[in-house]
Amino acid sequence: MFDVQHREVQNGSIEDVHIAYIGGGSEAWAHVLINDLAQCADVAGRVTLYDINTWAAELNADLGNHVMERDEAVGEWSFTATEDLETALTNADFVICSVQDPPEDTFRYDLELPAKYGIYQPVGDTVGPGGVVRSLRAIPQYRDIAAAVERICPEAWVINYTNPMAICTRALYATFPGIKAIGLCHEVFKGQRLFAGLAEEYVSEATAVTQDDIAIDITGINHFTWITSARWRGHDLYPLLENERSERTPLPRFEPGSRTDAGLYTDEMDVTFDLFDRYGVLPVAGDRHLAEFVPWYLDVDDPDEIHRWGIRLTPPSYRVERSYTTRETHRSEDILAGDRSFELGSSGEEVVAIMRSLLGLEPLVTHVNLPNRGQVPDLARETVVETNAIISGDTVTPHLADPLPPAIRGLLQPHVRNQETLIESGMTGDLDLGFRAFRNDPLVSIQPDQAACLFRELVETQQAYFESYDLENATVLER
Amino acid sequence: MFDVQHREVQNGSIEDVHIAYIGGGSEAWAHVLINDLAQCADVAGRVTLYDINTWAAELNADLGNHVMERDEAVGEWSFTATEDLETALTNADFVICSVQDPPEDTFRYDLELPAKYGIYQPVGDTVGPGGVVRSLRAIPQYRDIAAAVERICPEAWVINYTNPMAICTRALYATFPGIKAIGLCHEVFKGQRLFAGLAEEYVSEATAVTQDDIAIDITGINHFTWITSARWRGHDLYPLLENERSERTPLPRFEPGSRTDAGLYTDEMDVTFDLFDRYGVLPVAGDRHLAEFVPWYLDVDDPDEIHRWGIRLTPPSYRVERSYTTRETHRSEDILAGDRSFELGSSGEEVVAIMRSLLGLEPLVTHVNLPNRGQVPDLARETVVETNAIISGDTVTPHLADPLPPAIRGLLQPHVRNQETLIESGMTGDLDLGFRAFRNDPLVSIQPDQAACLFRELVETQQAYFESYDLENATVLER
Amino acid sequence: MFDVQHREVQNGSIEDVHIAYIGGGSEAWAHVLINDLAQCADVAGRVTLYDINTWAAELNADLGNHVMERDEAVGEWSFTATEDLETALTNADFVICSVQDPPEDTFRYDLELPAKYGIYQPVGDTVGPGGVVRSLRAIPQYRDIAAAVERICPEAWVINYTNPMAICTRALYATFPGIKAIGLCHEVFKGQRLFAGLAEEYVSEATAVTQDDIAIDITGINHFTWITSARWRGHDLYPLLENERSERTPLPRFEPGSRTDAGLYTDEMDVTFDLFDRYGVLPVAGDRHLAEFVPWYLDVDDPDEIHRWGIRLTPPSYRVERSYTTRETHRSEDILAGDRSFELGSSGEEVVAIMRSLLGLEPLVTHVNLPNRGQVPDLARETVVETNAIISGDTVTPHLADPLPPAIRGLLQPHVRNQETLIESGMTGDLDLGFRAFRNDPLVSIQPDQAACLFRELVETQQAYFESYDLENATVLER
Amino acid sequence: MFDVQHREVQNGSIEDVHIAYIGGGSEAWAHVLINDLAQCADVAGRVTLYDINTWAAELNADLGNHVMERDEAVGEWSFTATEDLETALTNADFVICSVQDPPEDTFRYDLELPAKYGIYQPVGDTVGPGGVVRSLRAIPQYRDIAAAVERICPEAWVINYTNPMAICTRALYATFPGIKAIGLCHEVFKGQRLFAGLAEEYVSEATAVTQDDIAIDITGINHFTWITSARWRGHDLYPLLENERSERTPLPRFEPGSRTDAGLYTDEMDVTFDLFDRYGVLPVAGDRHLAEFVPWYLDVDDPDEIHRWGIRLTPPSYRVERSYTTRETHRSEDILAGDRSFELGSSGEEVVAIMRSLLGLEPLVTHVNLPNRGQVPDLARETVVETNAIISGDTVTPHLADPLPPAIRGLLQPHVRNQETLIESGMTGDLDLGFRAFRNDPLVSIQPDQAACLFRELVETQQAYFESYDLENATVLER
Repeated sequence: MFDVQHREVQNGSIEDVHIAYIGGGSEAWAHVLINDLAQCADVAGRVTLYDINTWAAELNADLGNHVMERDEAVGEWSFTATEDLETALTNADFVICSVQDPPEDTFRYDLELPAKYGIYQPVGDTVGPGGVVRSLRAIPQYRDIAAAVERICPEAWVINYTNPMAICTRALYATFPGIKAIGLCHEVFKGQRLFAGLAEEYVSEATAVTQDDIAIDITGINHFTWITSARWRGHDLYPLLENERSERTPLPRFEPGSRTDAGLYTDEMDVTFDLFDRYGVLPVAGDRHLAEFVPWYLDVDDPDEIHRWGIRLTPPSYRVERSYTTRETHRSEDILAGDRSFELGSSGEEVVAIMRSLLGLEPLVTHVNLPNRGQVPDLARETVVETNAIISGDTVTPHLADPLPPAIRGLLQPHVRNQETLIESGMTGDLDLGFRAFRNDPLVSIQPDQAACLFRELVETQQAYFESYDLENATVLER
Repeated sequence: MFDVQHREVQNGSIEDVHIAYIGGGSEAWAHVLINDLAQCADVAGRVTLYDINTWAAELNADLGNHVMERDEAVGEWSFTATEDLETALTNADFVICSVQDPPEDTFRYDLELPAKYGIYQPVGDTVGPGGVVRSLRAIPQYRDIAAAVERICPEAWVINYTNPMAICTRALYATFPGIKAIGLCHEVFKGQRLFAGLAEEYVSEATAVTQDDIAIDITGINHFTWITSARWRGHDLYPLLENERSERTPLPRFEPGSRTDAGLYTDEMDVTFDLFDRYGVLPVAGDRHLAEFVPWYLDVDDPDEIHRWGIRLTPPSYRVERSYTTRETHRSEDILAGDRSFELGSSGEEVVAIMRSLLGLEPLVTHVNLPNRGQVPDLARETVVETNAIISGDTVTPHLADPLPPAIRGLLQPHVRNQETLIESGMTGDLDLGFRAFRNDPLVSIQPDQAACLFRELVETQQAYFESYDLENATVLER
Repeated sequence: MFDVQHREVQNGSIEDVHIAYIGGGSEAWAHVLINDLAQCADVAGRVTLYDINTWAAELNADLGNHVMERDEAVGEWSFTATEDLETALTNADFVICSVQDPPEDTFRYDLELPAKYGIYQPVGDTVGPGGVVRSLRAIPQYRDIAAAVERICPEAWVINYTNPMAICTRALYATFPGIKAIGLCHEVFKGQRLFAGLAEEYVSEATAVTQDDIAIDITGINHFTWITSARWRGHDLYPLLENERSERTPLPRFEPGSRTDAGLYTDEMDVTFDLFDRYGVLPVAGDRHLAEFVPWYLDVDDPDEIHRWGIRLTPPSYRVERSYTTRETHRSEDILAGDRSFELGSSGEEVVAIMRSLLGLEPLVTHVNLPNRGQVPDLARETVVETNAIISGDTVTPHLADPLPPAIRGLLQPHVRNQETLIESGMTGDLDLGFRAFRNDPLVSIQPDQAACLFRELVETQQAYFESYDLENATVLER
Repeated sequence: MFDVQHREVQNGSIEDVHIAYIGGGSEAWAHVLINDLAQCADVAGRVTLYDINTWAAELNADLGNHVMERDEAVGEWSFTATEDLETALTNADFVICSVQDPPEDTFRYDLELPAKYGIYQPVGDTVGPGGVVRSLRAIPQYRDIAAAVERICPEAWVINYTNPMAICTRALYATFPGIKAIGLCHEVFKGQRLFAGLAEEYVSEATAVTQDDIAIDITGINHFTWITSARWRGHDLYPLLENERSERTPLPRFEPGSRTDAGLYTDEMDVTFDLFDRYGVLPVAGDRHLAEFVPWYLDVDDPDEIHRWGIRLTPPSYRVERSYTTRETHRSEDILAGDRSFELGSSGEEVVAIMRSLLGLEPLVTHVNLPNRGQVPDLARETVVETNAIISGDTVTPHLADPLPPAIRGLLQPHVRNQETLIESGMTGDLDLGFRAFRNDPLVSIQPDQAACLFRELVETQQAYFESYDLENATVLER
């Protein structure tokens, strides 16, 4: 039992909550968690950080305890690290997942090898050849996590941050259908910020509008999500998109080669508005992700042409340099050494707010990734979809999503089916199914024999991560 | 356009809101509205009361203006009556519907005639022979309302209180698919009060729990709604039902004849718990309604046997005596004459709270009746279902409902199909379809030739209300 | 593998076919099989009869071998009996199922006990209290058969004749989803004969029309099947139903008490045409069965009133007297003793024709019972439905059925849901689920406490047949 | 009324049948019809040929009458030509549609313009940029045909041969939902011939197997159809595909440039077996069509590389040279002049067999294109799909199709959605919707601004065929 029911509430606050963090050595998400827990006055407990990089988990544990000692830290939380998954999960109320294979062994190839075949990916972590291969790596890992949760803490809430979001979340449910798991992604906030700006610009009485003030309805799959309506108080903001769109015409707006030095995450929203222009509904996920779901933007001979849409490719070196295992400096060490400050502030993330809601403190409406039990009536059941949900005591209830026009469904469905095929591949170890999904990806429009070569190269370069597949009988690996 | 967007918000309050009230001569609901508006500080405007009983509407208008003059009335609302529907609807932001045919011409026969054939109905306004005939009367009326709304105020929100709730709401959408309409019913609050009591009794830290503190998930159709989970903060209250159930065993608990003088609305919940006992899910609608959806409780030779389940029949005389048109005294008159007080207080209803949400003031989660766009995945599309929804600026978004076990779906589906058949009958004027629905009602288990006789009697006695049907070609009316 | 593929075809005929017959001691169906095989010139092989009544199986084996020796018997088949199911199934190409519990221990109570509570059933073998209890008895038996087929002869075609047809067939698929099984019932032929008569009467050029000349489309569930169109060559015969209907008006046509001596199987079709009259589609299953699916016809105080619809109740004594185990004379013995003749002729059944089609000899279109994979789009998936199918080499392909009006779906769905609930009850042993189905049956409109008493009596009287249920934890058995 | 019912059958044959032929000036299909009717002994009547090329229709009428006078022509049919559609349709029992816009004004651009943008199409008449534009031209034409049929001969059976098959058939139903229409295509016969060959090669007792001896189950959409099983008598032929596949490995088998002189319709089946290899189900439609539904095979820099898969592009000149309106010689003239013979023989087509079945003479199982009423449970309703059906007196009943693996559904769905979007575009005249479909086509993977340029060029070059579209408000036409 998720034991909120029997947990004692002392002086209005909930105590003894246990958070297990799988991938607890990660830097970005762990710092968010520490920051947010330090400011949470009405829940207390302990966090157990588990990571195959034990020293990274220990570093974060030290940092967590260090921050909690500060005066401005109103939260009461203790942090420990462990080398043992079972220890981490025992008595867990929440399990946070944020894991990543070493980029130098995996991610770099996901980007480099397809590029040799003329397939360019701005991110490569969700769909496209990189996303497909990453999915195949992730499913066995998430199958193991789900099995451990079922055995050790079946009533805990699992909160996943790892990409490919939909695949990881679906692998959890495919393994343990009774799991309580949600996938969280912050891309949708960008859409709220866009509308906040539009409200300020065009609605006379609207001032100092924040993303939280904007009510939106969304539907779709992670990183290919669509906003179907947006409101500020009673004001329908959707018609204002037309104003914005017309200011951007004609698209594309940039010269090839012009974005070489642009920040990777600069979001010009040119892909976003091109899609809005033609399909009448606004996608929201960042142009880097959106561009990978359809073949058009990345259909170039010279990768610099991608700049026309305001985006640029993530260099493999960027991933490798930021690898936790290879780089020399780590933020936590610097903070503990006093070389860097750690100011408590707004993280912009909702993980602690969501935990508070699940503990019964106050309901929250936000967007989550969940298997489709009907909340997206125009996509297949079981697909992990991204919609709004209301989160309250031990319950996550999806909102019913608006219908999408058939042309957008036509864009979504290849990915929906690929989810299905990839999960079947990962759960059964049949790599030929994985290749079906690979070939069905809209970015893989190369000749079939070339596609097979590329897939083989990807698998062989990362063979250590494909141990749970039946490589001997995979016809795609035959020459 | 629902003109919230362009309505000026002055000093934080919304002004110039126009509420049209169809059936504005009604006593109960008009008094609720006056009470709640008088206490609403941040919305102001006017109410136009339309009723075929003009004097009753005028009386309510006088009362409304009278109450607003009091010091404790913080609301700023003016009330007028009109004889003309078009006048009422012009520029309306909200249209409230609460209409009733004269019981002395209609309702009394809905109860009396079936009783002659051994069919007893505690209420007779939703299903059963009475409910079917009432549906056939209501559909043409609601078709006319929807057509007027489409023509005069297509962006207004229509809030329906009239029974049969699902049929009336569905007739609105069947006529004008773009209508913004919801149906509201307060029966579900009873379930929240039940769980509030259980929380207080069994959860140590729970004190002074109100119905609003209880989060529930519901699904089904109006008056045959099922609560699938209930929580107080993070506490799952559902297991506590077992405590309550075992205290009531064995059911039924009363003697035949023992409830002759019981209040009609006393809610012993014996039917409720008998259903929970056998089906594992708690229905919520009041035993008087629930008993009419299945054949068992009312399968008696002597109507006094119905008392075994803690309920009694509504006497036809009760309806007639309370008829607005025939009775001699009216509460509004007494209040205006100073013979009766009208204290502002909590009405327990949500109509004003819902209007505030629709105007963008603050979101509200509550249960509403809406066509099924997928929110109840296990019932047919288009059926008007009752589920939770979140109401915020100009938007009502249903929550996805939990699945029900097949046996409960088996109880619901005959009524779902009857909705479909009745709407087709009322929209086309084909009375033979109406008789199909009549015969398919679980309470009409009498011999087919007897059923036809009863149906003929009901139609002929109320012929004035069947003008829009093609009576000449109705084979069921042939002898 | 169903080894047609590798079976040698000698001189144009298929040899060495092995038919296992479970319930091979049965009289009616075994004689049909012997008759039809004796006239089948192009398939040869052996039949193994298995029955818990070994001597009955042996008797049929003797009869079979005896008949095959005749000159006019062109078939070449040998018959043996076995006490061992495994022996019977080994190397089987076809498995015929036609089993029945001893009526004196079971069926008599299915009829007698409900009658004590005022529930009268003309047949009691499909739905109604008798049908529900029979279903609960049958499911464990069919689960065992399916498990044995999966283990011993997974490629064999299973042809079921046992009632309740839908439940037995569904239990086979629920246990072994890969089973090749169909359920056959001859009730639909009646509809073809009706239309053959109408063609002869009203179509000038039509003479000597047989049931096989009539093409029909059907949909629904066994014994509650509906004919949606009927043709003789290009002639649409459906409009002719109106001629027939008007000749029968008004219904019902008989006096209470007038059918006391009528044959049980006399088919006056008054229930059939009453349903056609009100619902616009013709049901086909025999009035005795149809009357049990809806509450109206059997809602009587005196069982003689049932005669009004042309039908009468099957006396429990009728079943007991015909019990194979209790009666003194057996047709097979008489034939073998030369006291009775066995003339080869047309059986009117299709089992051998179907086996020939499955063996690849020639395709056949007929109606079969199969799980709904979509052939009846307006009923739930998995439900065993009855539709047309084309049978050809090792394949049974259902035809897509026409849609039914919502009012008929409203009549079907309680039984569809009961199928689901009963199967869950029988597969898990949870008898409380069985009681849910019992209570949901339209004939069980008695008070809930009475329904529980009746159910208890039925189970307790037949306790030996409920061994696989968890009786100890069944709350319905508690007093 | 389709008046088969009242048509007199004289001496066993059906007389006075009236066939209207829209596009009756076409050469190929008209000659098939003349050939097949001349050999049909038991149906007689007249054929009215309607064509915008009146002289071509008259030529065919002369030829038809000429052939019927021969001794070996057992059929009794008279042929006339008309300039007036109404005359042609009056009293029609059958309406055959086989129409084509002048290739020199349309088709040539469908191929030439995309090639400028690097998009190569072997056919260009179904999907791809050519197929999309042809669809947009065809929908208004078929809307007009359906409206005329509804007005003049609503009970006639419409048999369509025109591509894009699915779009034309769907336009008929979208305009007149009660139409009796089927679409016929002969591509599937190729699959039957393949299996006939496999049977002869690998099944010892199989000799002289013809396509008609092979039973297949199919599913999908026209030109992207999949065979899910194949049998010869009871023999499962599907496993034999593996033998064939392994003989062809590795694919592709040809050199770039090697097919320059190959016949256009040579069917090497390399695309077919490449798809079978990876997806496990055999597609059947000819490699030229299949290659256009997925991006891989046609993703080349030099069009000669397409030869690797055994296919070559249809040169635009090929279409133009064969245009009826531009070429100098016509087969009918030559035959009438005695310069060319017209031998009666097997056409390999089924149109007359199908008409005989619809007239009630004998049932036929074949594959047809029809709106999905559920026969393909894994594709959307309303989509025009291609499955088996049984055709008998005035009725076409689809067989339920087998399910497809998710990866194949992922390939089909973009085209299913495009059907929806194109029909909406053509029925409403909203050309921007047409561009959505254009952009969603898997062959159109070029940059969005390039796609818009190409679409504009295509529409502007063929502007006369886009009169029913709202070109003024089409944003895609704005520069």
